[in-house]
Amino acid sequence: MNTPCRSSDTLLPMPDFSIGVDLGGTNLRIAAVSTDGQLLEKITLGVKVALGRDHVIGEMCDAIHRLTEQYRGSGRFVGAGIGVPGIIDMETGMMRMSANLPGWSDYPVRDEIERRLGARVFLDNDAKVAALGEKWMGAGRGVDNMAMITLGTGIGGAIVLNGKIFYGMNGMAGEFGHVTVEPDGVPCGCGNHGCAERYASATAVVRMAREAIAAGQAPGLAKAANSDPEFSARSIYNLAIQGDPDARRIFHRFGEVLGILLAGLINVLNMDMFVIGGGVASAWDAFAPQMFAELRERSLVYAATAPEDPLDKLDKKEGASAQIAGYTRKKTIITRALLGSDAGLFGAARIPAS
Amino acid sequence: MNTPCRSSDTLLPMPDFSIGVDLGGTNLRIAAVSTDGQLLEKITLGVKVALGRDHVIGEMCDAIHRLTEQYRGSGRFVGAGIGVPGIIDMETGMMRMSANLPGWSDYPVRDEIERRLGARVFLDNDAKVAALGEKWMGAGRGVDNMAMITLGTGIGGAIVLNGKIFYGMNGMAGEFGHVTVEPDGVPCGCGNHGCAERYASATAVVRMAREAIAAGQAPGLAKAANSDPEFSARSIYNLAIQGDPDARRIFHRFGEVLGILLAGLINVLNMDMFVIGGGVASAWDAFAPQMFAELRERSLVYAATAPEDPLDKLDKKEGASAQIAGYTRKKTIITRALLGSDAGLFGAARIPAS
Repeated sequence: MNTPCRSSDTLLPMPDFSIGVDLGGTNLRIAAVSTDGQLLEKITLGVKVALGRDHVIGEMCDAIHRLTEQYRGSGRFVGAGIGVPGIIDMETGMMRMSANLPGWSDYPVRDEIERRLGARVFLDNDAKVAALGEKWMGAGRGVDNMAMITLGTGIGGAIVLNGKIFYGMNGMAGEFGHVTVEPDGVPCGCGNHGCAERYASATAVVRMAREAIAAGQAPGLAKAANSDPEFSARSIYNLAIQGDPDARRIFHRFGEVLGILLAGLINVLNMDMFVIGGGVASAWDAFAPQMFAELRERSLVYAATAPEDPLDKLDKKEGASAQIAGYTRKKTIITRALLGSDAGLFGAARIPAS
Repeated sequence: MNTPCRSSDTLLPMPDFSIGVDLGGTNLRIAAVSTDGQLLEKITLGVKVALGRDHVIGEMCDAIHRLTEQYRGSGRFVGAGIGVPGIIDMETGMMRMSANLPGWSDYPVRDEIERRLGARVFLDNDAKVAALGEKWMGAGRGVDNMAMITLGTGIGGAIVLNGKIFYGMNGMAGEFGHVTVEPDGVPCGCGNHGCAERYASATAVVRMAREAIAAGQAPGLAKAANSDPEFSARSIYNLAIQGDPDARRIFHRFGEVLGILLAGLINVLNMDMFVIGGGVASAWDAFAPQMFAELRERSLVYAATAPEDPLDKLDKKEGASAQIAGYTRKKTIITRALLGSDAGLFGAARIPAS
């Protein structure tokens, strides 16, 4: 499915297609995706956010234009969807708030791109389009109702009902990262204390490691931090799977908090499936055991609907879909996302195509 | 709307009607409600739960029969809805679990009542039918999406989407009472620690009072407990509004926990309205100030959508509906239920009528 399929390589008629854009703080990725879910081509550009909004929009529109020209053969271009890290006003197509894209708020992003492309453009939150991607072509293919938790710099979230994103009153449904898990816990930029994302995100992993180092209690972490200029959640995960007790303790805490959050979501939503995605989901081995332990203790709904052995059967990316399909209906499935960083591209491309 | 309207009192043609039943641990209430939402007549019977399931079902069917005979004049009887305290399997119409009605689990309650009445019968959870009642004829009349928190012996919950109850995968959505608010908190019968209903329910208020008395720190509460054989959440509320500092502290804690729960629900669901009902909602004056303080601190979604002065404008039962309608759209409304204990009757009657 990921093999690029250029018009020059085939004599088959091209299908209708749309463009999916994933605008991150670091990368700008643009893909042409056929309306039946084939990734036709993917372009990755470094985003020079510092060069400003207009520069980024210019690069984005050039790349979209290039792809649409290329695949416009016999297939119809149905529009573009763009996932952005921030809160979107769905009516106006403006960003209301974005920590990673200063200068983009209260600017008519959608309308400006529509004007330049002469095509329908949809703007949505990055966690929401990732969920839509997983629903369309990933872990959630077989279910109508699911929620997705995206573990990255913070925690993103989205609820899918009857195959569509549930936005709530004004597009803010799914703010899972700021659910309180520890009433007197770590302060958060949102004004709260003890938000889930202060314990279960890449930022939180590094914070907990630096605190352990500062307390002089974590020789393995201290050594790694000194020798690794990019001391990151990934470095700490690598130490954890090598058995470093302090790194393991951090992911134990991560799993505990994610379990508390997820137990609450299961009790509230009683969804068929919860998909865990985002970059830090790759640390699954390190945090999932404690996450499942919390779920069993803290969610009577999970306890009543849990598969017999969720950890053994569902922690492997390969084949998870087939195994999920094999479960008795009415089990609560907690599983890893299947599309990795392409989820956002598929989901963004899905909006104009659906 | 609450005036009984017997067929003998009027020459107007009778409207179609349904029967709503509220089966509690103490009372069995049965009402005839017209399909346009008029309460025609209400019967309250003491339930002798100890006399057994068959006795209770017999009394219920006799009363339903009496009402249907009386209102069957020119109006058509469209069926009966029954709200029960427990978890219902919606497919089989059986109770899966009910703390207050021992002996009712795994018995075909719905089918048996249908057989006796010769009419369509619907069984649903009491908190869910109360939400449906508030949506139909109470606080939620003007909104399509709302959630209701019912504060009673425990905490019940329900989510209404597009005017209908959202059940989740197998009817268990809305278990708000068992959301963790204090990870290392008070143990709960569900197996968890620190469930919301261990702090924000009638049972919890009495527990907190007895603990304060046992610690020798609450002379006002101790005096009341000694002189009042039915020392209850209501007695403690009465002390709180008279200024007793220990009783006030209990409702402060109640409001804090309810605020933490509600902040999470707002972040997750971004609903138009959250309705607070159940018997303990009448202690609103004592717990609402702290609840709103927590919401402002703990929910970025609430902070972005809060009415300017929710407490002053929405803490009064009378006129709340009109004031809600006057708010700018896209505000998160937190309000008291309007129908009191009749919410369950209206909601149960609504099921066969919708």
